[in-house]
Amino acid sequence: MPHTKLTYAQIQQQRQSEAEAAESTRRIPVIAILEDIRSLYNVGSIFRTSDGAHLEAIYTVGYTPHPPRKEIEKTALGATRTVPHRHFDTIEEAVLAARDHPPSASFLRRGSVKVAALEITSNSRSIFELGCKDFPLALVIGNEITGVSDRALGLCDFTLEIPMLGAKHSLNVAVAFGIAAFECVRNLR
Amino acid sequence: MPHTKLTYAQIQQQRQSEAEAAESTRRIPVIAILEDIRSLYNVGSIFRTSDGAHLEAIYTVGYTPHPPRKEIEKTALGATRTVPHRHFDTIEEAVLAARDHPPSASFLRRGSVKVAALEITSNSRSIFELGCKDFPLALVIGNEITGVSDRALGLCDFTLEIPMLGAKHSLNVAVAFGIAAFECVRNLR
Repeated sequence: MPHTKLTYAQIQQQRQSEAEAAESTRRIPVIAILEDIRSLYNVGSIFRTSDGAHLEAIYTVGYTPHPPRKEIEKTALGATRTVPHRHFDTIEEAVLAARDHPPSASFLRRGSVKVAALEITSNSRSIFELGCKDFPLALVIGNEITGVSDRALGLCDFTLEIPMLGAKHSLNVAVAFGIAAFECVRNLR
Repeated sequence: MPHTKLTYAQIQQQRQSEAEAAESTRRIPVIAILEDIRSLYNVGSIFRTSDGAHLEAIYTVGYTPHPPRKEIEKTALGATRTVPHRHFDTIEEAVLAARDHPPSASFLRRGSVKVAALEITSNSRSIFELGCKDFPLALVIGNEITGVSDRALGLCDFTLEIPMLGAKHSLNVAVAFGIAAFECVRNLR
């Protein structure tokens, strides 16, 4: 059986419009909290991925660059218009706001927000052990070099790690975020 | 319970050495075939991810940049030394070589190599429907703009897509590869 690529128009028919995606209340109940991410490219890519996973929101924290910035648009490809986003000066304010996030439809059906960091710690769980009880979830993503701060870790309910099977210590932050975001999608669809 | 970040040295103790990873015969039985990828940054990131997932090999095809290139090293962070890689001029040669790939230990225990494209087609399966019977797997990743070529699709046994829940058509290629690679890890660990 031949595999025929869908055209741009055919794919577009399967998607929500930008306006529908922006207003949608049937989201995957995950807030991405980006703590002191350095790279505009990574932030843009995380926006694009968050649109694809239809996440609840992105909170940018500290010196993480945030819209409007034309360099973010270059990799976000319009996803800053479809993913709700807010900026916070401190991680404490962001986590407090996440725990108190105004519920969309998906949040209403569920319990209180859990806060987790994507970080290798002494007691982190594998991302593959996520279960429905862990949602709604606020997922803290840390700096490209130093990772999630100790201050942020002190505010988290648990930590999650991606199993690393080779010789290297970590993945690119936008790639790691993508793996975690779609592991949430797999759990909840 | 406090979440204490592991130090660089503590993480290193949990990993294979570069020499062990380079020589390992207990790999995830997946060959990544990179067809006409444009960006050195994306190729480097795919190497880094392939080390983390401990994949069988990377085959670069056509104009995909391949080691040694210092721009690839910048994002691969040494993963070009731990992931076996070969370059092919054409997709036909690469797929033929993948189907005939000298088996590592993980390959010996399994059946014939299946070839799949990561592409949205008229009959693509969700990446979340991958099962053990689909391995060993050669996974074709296409160009950032045009995707996997029709020529390559004609050589594939099946196609896989990542469910896209928002308004945008696709993910960054290195992010999409990461999601697919670790979905293979989740299936096989």
